[in-house]
Amino acid sequence: MISQRAHQTLSFPTFSAQYTKEIQANLYHQLNNPEGIINFGQAINQLMEEEVLARINMPDALTLTARHQYYSDPSGILELRKAIANFLTRHHKPSKSINPDNLVVMNGITACLDALSHTLCDPNDVVITPTPVYGRIYTDFYDRSAATVVPLVCTQEDDFALHTEELKKLIKNVENKGRCVRACVILNPHNPLGHIYSSSQLRNIMEICAQHEVHVIIDEIYAFSIHDKDQTFNSVLGFESLPDAHRTHVAWGFSKDFSIPGFRLGVIHSLNPWVLSCLRTLSHYHSCPQLTQHAAATIINDIEWCDDFYIPTNQQRLYTAYHKARQRLQAMGVVTKKATAGLFLWANMQAFLQPCTKDREMALFMALVKGGVCILPGQKMHCANPGWFRIMFAVPEETLDKGLSRMEAVLSVWKTTEFTSS
Amino acid sequence: MISQRAHQTLSFPTFSAQYTKEIQANLYHQLNNPEGIINFGQAINQLMEEEVLARINMPDALTLTARHQYYSDPSGILELRKAIANFLTRHHKPSKSINPDNLVVMNGITACLDALSHTLCDPNDVVITPTPVYGRIYTDFYDRSAATVVPLVCTQEDDFALHTEELKKLIKNVENKGRCVRACVILNPHNPLGHIYSSSQLRNIMEICAQHEVHVIIDEIYAFSIHDKDQTFNSVLGFESLPDAHRTHVAWGFSKDFSIPGFRLGVIHSLNPWVLSCLRTLSHYHSCPQLTQHAAATIINDIEWCDDFYIPTNQQRLYTAYHKARQRLQAMGVVTKKATAGLFLWANMQAFLQPCTKDREMALFMALVKGGVCILPGQKMHCANPGWFRIMFAVPEETLDKGLSRMEAVLSVWKTTEFTSS
Repeated sequence: MISQRAHQTLSFPTFSAQYTKEIQANLYHQLNNPEGIINFGQAINQLMEEEVLARINMPDALTLTARHQYYSDPSGILELRKAIANFLTRHHKPSKSINPDNLVVMNGITACLDALSHTLCDPNDVVITPTPVYGRIYTDFYDRSAATVVPLVCTQEDDFALHTEELKKLIKNVENKGRCVRACVILNPHNPLGHIYSSSQLRNIMEICAQHEVHVIIDEIYAFSIHDKDQTFNSVLGFESLPDAHRTHVAWGFSKDFSIPGFRLGVIHSLNPWVLSCLRTLSHYHSCPQLTQHAAATIINDIEWCDDFYIPTNQQRLYTAYHKARQRLQAMGVVTKKATAGLFLWANMQAFLQPCTKDREMALFMALVKGGVCILPGQKMHCANPGWFRIMFAVPEETLDKGLSRMEAVLSVWKTTEFTSS
Repeated sequence: MISQRAHQTLSFPTFSAQYTKEIQANLYHQLNNPEGIINFGQAINQLMEEEVLARINMPDALTLTARHQYYSDPSGILELRKAIANFLTRHHKPSKSINPDNLVVMNGITACLDALSHTLCDPNDVVITPTPVYGRIYTDFYDRSAATVVPLVCTQEDDFALHTEELKKLIKNVENKGRCVRACVILNPHNPLGHIYSSSQLRNIMEICAQHEVHVIIDEIYAFSIHDKDQTFNSVLGFESLPDAHRTHVAWGFSKDFSIPGFRLGVIHSLNPWVLSCLRTLSHYHSCPQLTQHAAATIINDIEWCDDFYIPTNQQRLYTAYHKARQRLQAMGVVTKKATAGLFLWANMQAFLQPCTKDREMALFMALVKGGVCILPGQKMHCANPGWFRIMFAVPEETLDKGLSRMEAVLSVWKTTEFTSS
């Protein structure tokens, strides 16, 4: 009844829609649904909600005019591509200004990665990414385009460090099996680890990839969600030179850093004319409303609001929420990895699992959901070690407090039962 | 440097971007660019601009709230799917109300057709459509998904009629060559012919397809742009029964009937659970901002505005523009086919071509562009007979007058030169 390809698409495993539906159907709301489930699972920044809504609802951002009513460049209106080019140039300080013609706008990073998969990979080609990793990396490269993601496994024993020589080995291994490695995907800042790669580490990765003619895709979706005041972010867009400029592609978007995932706005920067040309062709299928493009352009062109107010205020609030969550988790006996960016903590909950297996990890996940709080099991992020969870903290203070208290309540009972029943 | 698949995507012929760029860069505007090119090429309805902008800019349609700021169902927010289901049920009067769960919303019909191609066809499978046809049908099924569109050639000699026995023959022919026919695409109302298929003709087409297990995709993007007062539209969504309900899929959207192509909102109706499931998976890559979904839901939920004012007023204005354009073209010696729906006239300009070839057709197109008016050459719509053009008329009266006068001026000189130089 449907194509072989559709059967493949449908057979690809994703995080059980059942749980997601259950959680979404009964989401916590302070007034409307105080008994609902608190969502520490999905990466949504609610810390700036009021401020974002107030700015976007100003008439300069949100009025439909004839200029944005009809068709335009499907790969992004020039107004937005210019605004993004200016914004990224302002912040990442490349030696040469970013050119709007090197940008292709699509409806979210998910669409961007899918389009890159089509452009760079033939079906069954291999894409490498260090794990644990944001789970949709696997899905986005496969669903439509049928490339296979192969993990560069980073482990707890090594504090989840990425060893570049292991990347080299893995590329060779895959190639020795007769398969083609087409791309390496690096999340910087990393999701779920919450760290920033150093410039030299990025350069090492890019050099290895250049030697093997492997494209490097850097997903910088959390580039402006840095909460460690001593950290500066090393965007590849600010590098003086690149080991293989035509095989380096950077993705960014508005979902996380500007807290408007509902806008579906992502962008790819590339210097490769063939890649740009193919992405522009595909952009017909991944185009964005001009109204939302205009609104997004307006807020990042407003330097006083964007650079002087929004970004520092958001980072300050992330800082406060991160430290509060980390301290309270520590008090519960949950050890978290130090993070400098992003909306989440990478938490070791192995002390609560007996035995420490994937099944017990899912059991704890379900017990927490039953207790009114959802966090993301590490196995859904392809973590090699069971017992890790990603805990999202970018929620209003009252919600953070209540969610952490619920975790505490579940864990205190859980530990007793877990260790008695074994 | 890029995938084999990307090379295929890039090598697919589309209407020369050069002309499109040239025309877009120098578009006519009554005040700002009175010497610019008048666009009778692209199907954009400007007749209701003021009214559409006024309604959408009301705060109930266009205010961003937390409800639409974050993530939601990528296959369309329930609010919009319910609004569309009610709207289509109200107008197409099916015996059983349309169910919002049978709808998948994507960013435009272009994306919808591409996603249907992925879902129904494997690479190199065949999709049949009667020609002449809106050119992107070929592109949308091929670019990402690599299905081949094979034309069911309808000709001038037969007044471009579709003979269902020819469809049967063509399916058999393709199958005899060892290729799989997966779908037949019917545009109803038709683009560029501007006619509506009768219920019995649609049923015949669907019955032949059912016999051969071929899916039928009905693109009803102009369903509410009917300008003939004696015509009622026969949506497949209103049919009591279908020859093969699980192989019948209907597409509709807001671009044409509500004159907001910049919103990128299309929708597929299907009763096939496998198709729906695959489309929902793909919808992650073709999702729409919730804000525009909310705005679209608001205007079609406002029955007083939508049903009582907008649709009849739009149809009245299309009626006036259609008749005016047709009469003036006739006075110039341009014979047009009778149309009952859509924004365009299908015009025979063979009397101006000597010899009547594809090259001369393009030469006339270029002469008209030089004379300040753009119409679409039939070869870009896969018309078997040279000398036909699609002329879009849904522009303000002053623009229509000026554009037709420019055509008149070019044609009077052109005819003399054309027939003297030969």
